[in-house]
Amino acid sequence: MGRIKIEHILKNVQNGTLSIEEAKNRLTLFDDIGFAKLDISRHERTGFPEVVYAEGKTVEQLVDILKQLKKKTNRVLATRVSEKQAIIVHEVLPELHYNPAARTLSWIHPDEPQSRYQGYIAVVCGGTSDIPVAEEAVVTAETFGCKVERFYDVGVAGIHRLFNCIEEIRNASASIVVAGMEGALPSVLGGLVDHPLIAVPTSIGYGANLNGVSALLSMLNACAPGINVVNIDNGFGAGYNAAQILRISGRQEK
Amino acid sequence: MGRIKIEHILKNVQNGTLSIEEAKNRLTLFDDIGFAKLDISRHERTGFPEVVYAEGKTVEQLVDILKQLKKKTNRVLATRVSEKQAIIVHEVLPELHYNPAARTLSWIHPDEPQSRYQGYIAVVCGGTSDIPVAEEAVVTAETFGCKVERFYDVGVAGIHRLFNCIEEIRNASASIVVAGMEGALPSVLGGLVDHPLIAVPTSIGYGANLNGVSALLSMLNACAPGINVVNIDNGFGAGYNAAQILRISGRQEK
Amino acid sequence: MGRIKIEHILKNVQNGTLSIEEAKNRLTLFDDIGFAKLDISRHERTGFPEVVYAEGKTVEQLVDILKQLKKKTNRVLATRVSEKQAIIVHEVLPELHYNPAARTLSWIHPDEPQSRYQGYIAVVCGGTSDIPVAEEAVVTAETFGCKVERFYDVGVAGIHRLFNCIEEIRNASASIVVAGMEGALPSVLGGLVDHPLIAVPTSIGYGANLNGVSALLSMLNACAPGINVVNIDNGFGAGYNAAQILRISGRQEK
Amino acid sequence: MGRIKIEHILKNVQNGTLSIEEAKNRLTLFDDIGFAKLDISRHERTGFPEVVYAEGKTVEQLVDILKQLKKKTNRVLATRVSEKQAIIVHEVLPELHYNPAARTLSWIHPDEPQSRYQGYIAVVCGGTSDIPVAEEAVVTAETFGCKVERFYDVGVAGIHRLFNCIEEIRNASASIVVAGMEGALPSVLGGLVDHPLIAVPTSIGYGANLNGVSALLSMLNACAPGINVVNIDNGFGAGYNAAQILRISGRQEK
Amino acid sequence: MGRIKIEHILKNVQNGTLSIEEAKNRLTLFDDIGFAKLDISRHERTGFPEVVYAEGKTVEQLVDILKQLKKKTNRVLATRVSEKQAIIVHEVLPELHYNPAARTLSWIHPDEPQSRYQGYIAVVCGGTSDIPVAEEAVVTAETFGCKVERFYDVGVAGIHRLFNCIEEIRNASASIVVAGMEGALPSVLGGLVDHPLIAVPTSIGYGANLNGVSALLSMLNACAPGINVVNIDNGFGAGYNAAQILRISGRQEK
Amino acid sequence: MGRIKIEHILKNVQNGTLSIEEAKNRLTLFDDIGFAKLDISRHERTGFPEVVYAEGKTVEQLVDILKQLKKKTNRVLATRVSEKQAIIVHEVLPELHYNPAARTLSWIHPDEPQSRYQGYIAVVCGGTSDIPVAEEAVVTAETFGCKVERFYDVGVAGIHRLFNCIEEIRNASASIVVAGMEGALPSVLGGLVDHPLIAVPTSIGYGANLNGVSALLSMLNACAPGINVVNIDNGFGAGYNAAQILRISGRQEK
Amino acid sequence: MGRIKIEHILKNVQNGTLSIEEAKNRLTLFDDIGFAKLDISRHERTGFPEVVYAEGKTVEQLVDILKQLKKKTNRVLATRVSEKQAIIVHEVLPELHYNPAARTLSWIHPDEPQSRYQGYIAVVCGGTSDIPVAEEAVVTAETFGCKVERFYDVGVAGIHRLFNCIEEIRNASASIVVAGMEGALPSVLGGLVDHPLIAVPTSIGYGANLNGVSALLSMLNACAPGINVVNIDNGFGAGYNAAQILRISGRQEK
Amino acid sequence: MGRIKIEHILKNVQNGTLSIEEAKNRLTLFDDIGFAKLDISRHERTGFPEVVYAEGKTVEQLVDILKQLKKKTNRVLATRVSEKQAIIVHEVLPELHYNPAARTLSWIHPDEPQSRYQGYIAVVCGGTSDIPVAEEAVVTAETFGCKVERFYDVGVAGIHRLFNCIEEIRNASASIVVAGMEGALPSVLGGLVDHPLIAVPTSIGYGANLNGVSALLSMLNACAPGINVVNIDNGFGAGYNAAQILRISGRQEK
Repeated sequence: MGRIKIEHILKNVQNGTLSIEEAKNRLTLFDDIGFAKLDISRHERTGFPEVVYAEGKTVEQLVDILKQLKKKTNRVLATRVSEKQAIIVHEVLPELHYNPAARTLSWIHPDEPQSRYQGYIAVVCGGTSDIPVAEEAVVTAETFGCKVERFYDVGVAGIHRLFNCIEEIRNASASIVVAGMEGALPSVLGGLVDHPLIAVPTSIGYGANLNGVSALLSMLNACAPGINVVNIDNGFGAGYNAAQILRISGRQEK
Repeated sequence: MGRIKIEHILKNVQNGTLSIEEAKNRLTLFDDIGFAKLDISRHERTGFPEVVYAEGKTVEQLVDILKQLKKKTNRVLATRVSEKQAIIVHEVLPELHYNPAARTLSWIHPDEPQSRYQGYIAVVCGGTSDIPVAEEAVVTAETFGCKVERFYDVGVAGIHRLFNCIEEIRNASASIVVAGMEGALPSVLGGLVDHPLIAVPTSIGYGANLNGVSALLSMLNACAPGINVVNIDNGFGAGYNAAQILRISGRQEK
Repeated sequence: MGRIKIEHILKNVQNGTLSIEEAKNRLTLFDDIGFAKLDISRHERTGFPEVVYAEGKTVEQLVDILKQLKKKTNRVLATRVSEKQAIIVHEVLPELHYNPAARTLSWIHPDEPQSRYQGYIAVVCGGTSDIPVAEEAVVTAETFGCKVERFYDVGVAGIHRLFNCIEEIRNASASIVVAGMEGALPSVLGGLVDHPLIAVPTSIGYGANLNGVSALLSMLNACAPGINVVNIDNGFGAGYNAAQILRISGRQEK
Repeated sequence: MGRIKIEHILKNVQNGTLSIEEAKNRLTLFDDIGFAKLDISRHERTGFPEVVYAEGKTVEQLVDILKQLKKKTNRVLATRVSEKQAIIVHEVLPELHYNPAARTLSWIHPDEPQSRYQGYIAVVCGGTSDIPVAEEAVVTAETFGCKVERFYDVGVAGIHRLFNCIEEIRNASASIVVAGMEGALPSVLGGLVDHPLIAVPTSIGYGANLNGVSALLSMLNACAPGINVVNIDNGFGAGYNAAQILRISGRQEK
Repeated sequence: MGRIKIEHILKNVQNGTLSIEEAKNRLTLFDDIGFAKLDISRHERTGFPEVVYAEGKTVEQLVDILKQLKKKTNRVLATRVSEKQAIIVHEVLPELHYNPAARTLSWIHPDEPQSRYQGYIAVVCGGTSDIPVAEEAVVTAETFGCKVERFYDVGVAGIHRLFNCIEEIRNASASIVVAGMEGALPSVLGGLVDHPLIAVPTSIGYGANLNGVSALLSMLNACAPGINVVNIDNGFGAGYNAAQILRISGRQEK
Repeated sequence: MGRIKIEHILKNVQNGTLSIEEAKNRLTLFDDIGFAKLDISRHERTGFPEVVYAEGKTVEQLVDILKQLKKKTNRVLATRVSEKQAIIVHEVLPELHYNPAARTLSWIHPDEPQSRYQGYIAVVCGGTSDIPVAEEAVVTAETFGCKVERFYDVGVAGIHRLFNCIEEIRNASASIVVAGMEGALPSVLGGLVDHPLIAVPTSIGYGANLNGVSALLSMLNACAPGINVVNIDNGFGAGYNAAQILRISGRQEK
Repeated sequence: MGRIKIEHILKNVQNGTLSIEEAKNRLTLFDDIGFAKLDISRHERTGFPEVVYAEGKTVEQLVDILKQLKKKTNRVLATRVSEKQAIIVHEVLPELHYNPAARTLSWIHPDEPQSRYQGYIAVVCGGTSDIPVAEEAVVTAETFGCKVERFYDVGVAGIHRLFNCIEEIRNASASIVVAGMEGALPSVLGGLVDHPLIAVPTSIGYGANLNGVSALLSMLNACAPGINVVNIDNGFGAGYNAAQILRISGRQEK
Repeated sequence: MGRIKIEHILKNVQNGTLSIEEAKNRLTLFDDIGFAKLDISRHERTGFPEVVYAEGKTVEQLVDILKQLKKKTNRVLATRVSEKQAIIVHEVLPELHYNPAARTLSWIHPDEPQSRYQGYIAVVCGGTSDIPVAEEAVVTAETFGCKVERFYDVGVAGIHRLFNCIEEIRNASASIVVAGMEGALPSVLGGLVDHPLIAVPTSIGYGANLNGVSALLSMLNACAPGINVVNIDNGFGAGYNAAQILRISGRQEK
């Protein structure tokens, strides 16, 4: 909060055009006029609501939070939801959609547009075992208003499959590339596309894959520039980050 | 390359409107009509040229490559250039600018616009020791045509300094956050901005920082979503990725 | 045991003012006059009794130990107690209080004062998943006679929540900061308070959090000075160390 | 900054007893009335000034910073100062004391009391190779106004040497225990003293010591409670933390 | 695909001896004329079909894939098949052979020769616990048409057992050496044979074996040259690589 | 096998004093006259029989092996035997003794002396959780004919307990020291005894103990010389190695 | 050595057709008739002589060993030879060829055929920085009599370059693939060729490449089967292993 | 110190047969009558004096300590002595012997017997690069009065060399086995000898040897029992531990 804004408020208090109560609200640090306020207005403006991480929460807690969110916001997302949690939540909140591969519960208000941004996100993955993480990215991006195209099972071990769809991937505004084992797919794709690419290592593999650390290191060391990396199995983070890229593009247009 | 395009070329060969030589060029896989061609046209269009990694190259090699690049492209960048290398390059190519903190040699053709995209990139770093990595990001982004604003020395240990400039950071289109030691700065900033954020861990610190692995892990595990991570000390990668985000924004506008 | 004390004892033996049996008791190394004796007197004086680590103990062992401790000391604490263990212990020792979040059994003799030291300990944590570790710290500190204030869910991803209660945290005599994932909270808080701060990394997170090693490294590398670190998930250790700080303050007053 | 204080300022502006300029100063967030002001007042009150980390700084930068600090504060400390840096600094600032073992430059204003707190800190270390880290802790604590007693060369491999001085260690208000190799000393001492203990692992050793990681892990896993750990070779951090404990004791006395 | 082949196709289109449809098929990038075609012809020629990794697949998926493969190819192999999966697959595809130690399902068409290459592969392992991994290698190599000789329980701790069969191992065309714990067997054998040796570390052991990482490192650092290493517990990979060596030998004969 | 012995055998064949069959037996490499023969004679002489590692073996396999060993040797030992395995083995081989803490089955022929060597082994451990590993060492050493004295619960956190029995430990011929968590006990004891000491790290602890790696590193870096280390939780190995030391002492006496 | 051979020798001694001296030679275990003899005959037959690792050897030692080897064998190879070592060796042994990139000294007797096996080895590498390791592999394979084709600078970040030469790589009998940073090249190539592939990780890169461990893990986890891995920077090992594959092919032809 | 001894001293004080000064000496805890006294008597009896670790000591310090030791004890040993340190020490103490491979300075009083124990220690190593560590073990054991036999260059890659001297190794009372790279030698030797074996991993190797951690892990996981492990490159520790085994054997004889 700059000194100029503060001066403006103070002058208005001095000359009586602003009540003390209102001035206090504007100056009170965070929840009231500070970051939180911006924060809330950001949610209203961008539709990126709070996302619920269901793991370790009781079904009661989950139902309560989702109910509240559904009232306050037009786009609801919960990740890492077990099938068991989903069944009980569904009894109370049948409108929420459960994606069993992604393990997500999501909902968009019927009045909301499915897609709010130009362009689309390509979600690419190498093996069928990586699909759950890829789907978490897909649902996240879609819930936040992005169009998504899936390009699954195009791993580097049979690279011709990747080349068959390379032009459609190239036309996306951002790519999410999900890969386990040696995690080489982002390196290959990074040299073929000219848009931002978010790489998600997965824990798929065994032995020297070290539960995904091997794929993570590969992606951080990718010889192709332009590769952004998120945590192992973090499909949500990748979907969120890609959605931010689409949204910022939209913001700049104006 | 889709079947439809191939059919089109073949028909033109059959009806004589396309010479075999030309058809051959269009069909030859990569260097000629394939990815490489697109690649070259991408460079022409976007101005993201080949970047030279100077470490381990002899000065002769460096001079040769930079000379050639300067002829072929309007934007030249070399990273990890030692002062010794820079002095000799300068004798031959005095137009290249050496940034001793960033250890970069860069050049933009006088006819080229300094800035080609709307908006700006915020480059934020916590300690003075992180500045070399931050400067590498700055020079990379600027050479690729982005406007950059620096926010240095705003680390979490004195978080009020960050808050003093938070609004200007928030107004950027993307942020690059450079931090060593515990690498906490991206987590804090990630909760305060609503644009894409690229986190660069640095190897600054000692002991349990494990040469930057500690900061890297922090950033990958950041509780704030929206954080993209690159390799330790990879200022170039962060600048490149941020420039891609600005460029993709521009592309969508049309 | 200094030479002067020994000389004193010997002289008294020589001149007959001290019996051999008594002199032997005073000189016998540890259990009798040595460290153990001091040890026991320390317990009597400070009320920091033996603490029981319940994990891996049979319920019978647990009941036996707790019964004995309850007779010998006024403050009893067992950590890592499963719900199953707690139920059976309760049948025999219904006075012990079970905190299911902290997984502790604790008891303070009715004649003992709840709080024995001036000031209070602030227990701060970032996410709801970190609460069990935070509660273990709370129960430990309270059982040892400290006043505790809880500041939960004030993580760095929404830093304004931290600032809303910063003055109350600043007024504490020591802080315990519990954080998982990237473990950034102690760094931020370390720059805002001027009392000793004990940081507890938790194993909360996934993938590159490496079961808490990521948060542990963050805290060890914190750029803010004044941060003391304990083992991953070691809420007990943090509570104990903070209580020691409060007690030593009390000791110096005299 | 609480709402009540803000209301008070606003009322004084409204009723004209406070000028806008002054109110602006009081309300401007950080540098002016916010955390920074508290920060500065904290320094005045506690004498814990900014500490300079000399590694990687040019001698010019070092001289400038130290000159400025010496004007603004009564206690100046720079750590990791090379002998070469120290010699040049000495030409300009001959009052600063260089401790070649600790590699520190320090200065206390002649008007300041050497010792400001009751009690003393015991600095204990196991081998002569650990002395530089121990000395950094000593100088830090002394510069911040603490009395320090050294107990060097009392490692666990000849534990009788530790027992010869155990009573003097026990009488301290806090201990700093510096140990390399297997880092066992804090475990042993932790069971013998009843005051806060700060353990500093050092990188002394070879092979499987993994540059201090072995000692660090030992200290984090110490079976004795009451052990606070700082980063490898972080003598400064230990001295700072111990000084905070002495100071907080003093604060509570009032 | 070389320019000469493309020219040839184009000329035939121009002179009418090749229809556009056929030319299109030949030129279409991957699946049709590109790498995939070569790929398919490779399978026909070498009999190295797609191999199914059963872990994480539902029994339905497994049955479907195996049915399809059995129609398309003469040699079927599935690895990491649980006993439970095998029982259900057997109801539908009783011809498939289940090896419970190797956890494989395999089938060779009755018209196919059991062995297609000269020479044999020696599969050597040190302890009975390593047999499952060794058997996976055996079944893989046999399914791909190789003759295999087993040399089990010849670990380095009783090296005379190895020497009793060393001549038969020496007469093989390639060896697969499976070892857990310290993984020393390949080093010893590597100095005694003059054919290619593939080393497979296993996760057998405890404590400092780090789930097979210890054996893996041993094999990578073997002082005997000529040792090729695959992932921990990767019996399939070793069998596949050894089969490739036998096949390439056969190819060169012509 | 030296050339001189071979010459001797050959001469006897030449001069007819040795049959070809007998000469063949003496020269055949391993099983017959080579290492294996020595091996067998070693077992007869030393009573160190094959030891059975029960983990991962079926009860049938276990019964078969133990039956055979019981016929061939006077001292039988199986380690890592589950209670379930033990119960079934007991039905067939009721003479074998099951130690539930050590998880061992052991048997010494009634005609064999309990103790075959002078002196005794001290088995020392710090916490009750380490007892299973200590007991495995005890049973191993006793089965191989050594006298053992137990010194349990003498950890470094209450070092006076160790000093109370230090003289009895000092009088042993070798010590086995079992410790988890920070593994400091061998360092302390190593400075107090003058006989060989075998340190066993255990996986007891949590968080930064890294499943015993922390204790292992401590012991390898112990500042006291004279410390031999075995694998994490390897009580058997320690018992075996200590028994070898006692036996070699006996051998030298003659 | 089988019992039958021994019987044969003994019978000949008995019947006087074999002198004791000769029989002794044949029976003496290793150096004389055992493995060493086979070893020497292997060298004569295969031309795989002892290879000299020059690092850490004095120039005198190096000259002595190389002189001796040059007398005894027709193919001499020394690896890791510094330029300084090479210059001095050259004064004495000017026939040895020094490859400054590979850091090898090598020599083939003029009477020896350059190439002794059918087919060729493809040596593929991604970046110019990997060339030293690739050249070590090339020189090793060539010295052992293999034909080699180089395919340098065909990394995955510009995968079209790889495809331009894929058919020539496919026609090789074995491939050596050298890659640093993320080490993705073997994965891609593994899906495109049907001959044995040896992957060599290099230490090229920085930060999270962990001195080559990242590339090593990638290669061990490659999703394409058929990939054999050697130690980081071990060009020699790869050349040796590939030469063994070519030689074994030749052996089977007979 | 037992209660009985204390009672005895006290009675003598009481009845006047012991002066207070003398009783004080006997009772004063460590340096005087406690462990240190025993310690000194241990040195006198066993000749295991204090050993000097020269690394990091100034030449002045080194000379002072060695001078003092030479007066007080008959056997002097300093390890990790650089050639530069040795030259200057030699000027003052020309009797000390410098072993440049072992980097030791050692001296035995002319009146002392070279060898004080029965039997000998076999020091075995695999490669010439491991000799410095092996020599440190040799000098340590010899200085402490043990006879040593060297068996160098008998690595597992040419295992016949090991077998040529196996009987002489078997006749030793203890073996020290020094090995770098994959560290397999102790595993092989452990199965062939029946005396205590001390394994020393060395840092020799590159890449995945991780500076000796690979060899260390191999030795800890050795499948042969009876292997004691010391720190990487710790030749001194191995020599010390082997000497202790020989000495304890001697002690038991009486």
